[in-house]
Amino acid sequence: MENERWDVLLDLAINEAWKYQFLTYPNPAVGASLVIKNKVFVSAHKKAGSPHAEVNVLWDAFSFFHKTPKFTDSFEIHEYLIKHHNNFFNEAEMFVTLEPCSHIGKTPSCANLLKVLKPKSVTIGIKDPIKSHSGGVEILKNAGIEVNLLNDKRCFDLIEPFIKWSKDKFIFFKLAQSFNGAITGGYISSEDSLNWVHKVRDKIDLLVIGGNTVRIDRPTLDARRVNGKAPDILIYSKNKNFDKNIPLFKVKNRKVFIEDSLEEINDYKFIMIEGGENLYKKLKDFVDWKVFIVTPKIFDRINYKLEDSFKILHVEKRDDLIVFGK
Amino acid sequence: MENERWDVLLDLAINEAWKYQFLTYPNPAVGASLVIKNKVFVSAHKKAGSPHAEVNVLWDAFSFFHKTPKFTDSFEIHEYLIKHHNNFFNEAEMFVTLEPCSHIGKTPSCANLLKVLKPKSVTIGIKDPIKSHSGGVEILKNAGIEVNLLNDKRCFDLIEPFIKWSKDKFIFFKLAQSFNGAITGGYISSEDSLNWVHKVRDKIDLLVIGGNTVRIDRPTLDARRVNGKAPDILIYSKNKNFDKNIPLFKVKNRKVFIEDSLEEINDYKFIMIEGGENLYKKLKDFVDWKVFIVTPKIFDRINYKLEDSFKILHVEKRDDLIVFGK
Ligand SMILES: [Zn+2]
Ligand SMILES: [Zn+2]
Repeated sequence: MENERWDVLLDLAINEAWKYQFLTYPNPAVGASLVIKNKVFVSAHKKAGSPHAEVNVLWDAFSFFHKTPKFTDSFEIHEYLIKHHNNFFNEAEMFVTLEPCSHIGKTPSCANLLKVLKPKSVTIGIKDPIKSHSGGVEILKNAGIEVNLLNDKRCFDLIEPFIKWSKDKFIFFKLAQSFNGAITGGYISSEDSLNWVHKVRDKIDLLVIGGNTVRIDRPTLDARRVNGKAPDILIYSKNKNFDKNIPLFKVKNRKVFIEDSLEEINDYKFIMIEGGENLYKKLKDFVDWKVFIVTPKIFDRINYKLEDSFKILHVEKRDDLIVFGK
Repeated sequence: MENERWDVLLDLAINEAWKYQFLTYPNPAVGASLVIKNKVFVSAHKKAGSPHAEVNVLWDAFSFFHKTPKFTDSFEIHEYLIKHHNNFFNEAEMFVTLEPCSHIGKTPSCANLLKVLKPKSVTIGIKDPIKSHSGGVEILKNAGIEVNLLNDKRCFDLIEPFIKWSKDKFIFFKLAQSFNGAITGGYISSEDSLNWVHKVRDKIDLLVIGGNTVRIDRPTLDARRVNGKAPDILIYSKNKNFDKNIPLFKVKNRKVFIEDSLEEINDYKFIMIEGGENLYKKLKDFVDWKVFIVTPKIFDRINYKLEDSFKILHVEKRDDLIVFGK
């Protein structure tokens, strides 16, 4: 590893991948960057079933320098690049947060595509920890491509949700707060953050929420802002008496559980807990990650209070900050 | 402007410049990036009197591909590059957050250096708003270099402190808090943040602090962690009675004012207010920027409370978050 040249391009790939964290479910968040003819391209895997990060960045670069059809399907792009690359990528240096896949799933294998396109080098953040997915490094090396295999902690963080939901389940706690720690259900986040929450709700299987929040806010808890599917709901509450006119009960194709235990969670793989002080206190040691939506506003109002600390994995700066912690 | 290719490289330059925000006083924070032979280099101006961002990034790139002396002096680097460049940079694409300087000050002019090295293109975030500094664009264009002049709002944000202290003075409020808005003098920030605060104290002219903080914390308020100079102090307090054994009074070569007005500020150009709820309430409309050091810890303790909102300019993710707002 020479030094900062790698770092900068891997940083770009990592940061791009974080923009789609959770939204690639059940796939991992992966980012890629590519330098070719002194131009830098950066992309990510954005959604299950859509092209992998490597394919997106290869296609961006190829389309920048050539007149190409408007493809979005991974098979079409693979086929087109294999047919028309004409050694275009031979001087390219690629960076990808996760080992290129060797298996053919919903999309063709990235390692097999790279074997044909033959970039000068591929620098890889981490090997694919799932045995049946790995083998990409060997395919690339056998094709004579220079492979730099890093062991970058940040690339593990990026796919931790994937690892967890592949093996069992991934659970995160979401809390929206003002800059000075005040919580007010629903009225804190920006439009941008609300859209993001709906995108995430479209991906999760189960949303856990406290009984008081349901009674006070009377929420819908769907993904209507992005025309997404509504997750099943677990209302975590001792008192099982709720006004069934609260909108969340009226959403079609959704199950709603009202329980004072978390047993229902065992049937789900990707779970978000939306809550405040009480639920945080109860469940903080039970969750894998915490995600804070922090609005740049200070209110003359009291904060939530409890003892906890976490490591910041990533901060997305949007209208609000989205802080991923663990 | 084609599209994301510019963005990514300008982003890198902007983010690098923010790492040295305030530390370049009395110079502006400037970042630069360069792509050459498919390698990406990123650097910034780090300190007044040291090489400008453009010179740092040119030197990084040249040293990566050539055996060079270990120069840190700007004149030496300029001279060496002019003598040995051998058209090395002709294919390079450079990105810089601020127009390259045309005047010769403590360091030689960057525009004149670029004129000789002749990179393929120079993309510039904003023109230098100070008339006597501008002219760089014309020098580059006359040399036949492709110049892309953007008008990137983020590049203005970056140099706002510089603009203010050039014309009059720049004042920012610094507050250290837990994630849920609790303040506890001195015991919140990480080592890393404390070092950063000392680096900043070494640069400012005047530090304003509240009387109660002085009485309770008995601080030194110097820059000993970085062997820096201690700023003058204004204790903003009605009660002028202080125990003169409090360490801040014992620091050599420092003036300490105890006033219940801010008049003393008029003799200074770069001013930090370190405070909590009371000082924030009193001075929030008076300051140019707010800087929050946010620790990823949640305490079972009450928050500071007031009404305010700001726009987030930048977030530095370190052990803590350093959030620059306006
Ligand atoms: Zn793949
Ligand atoms: Zn300069």
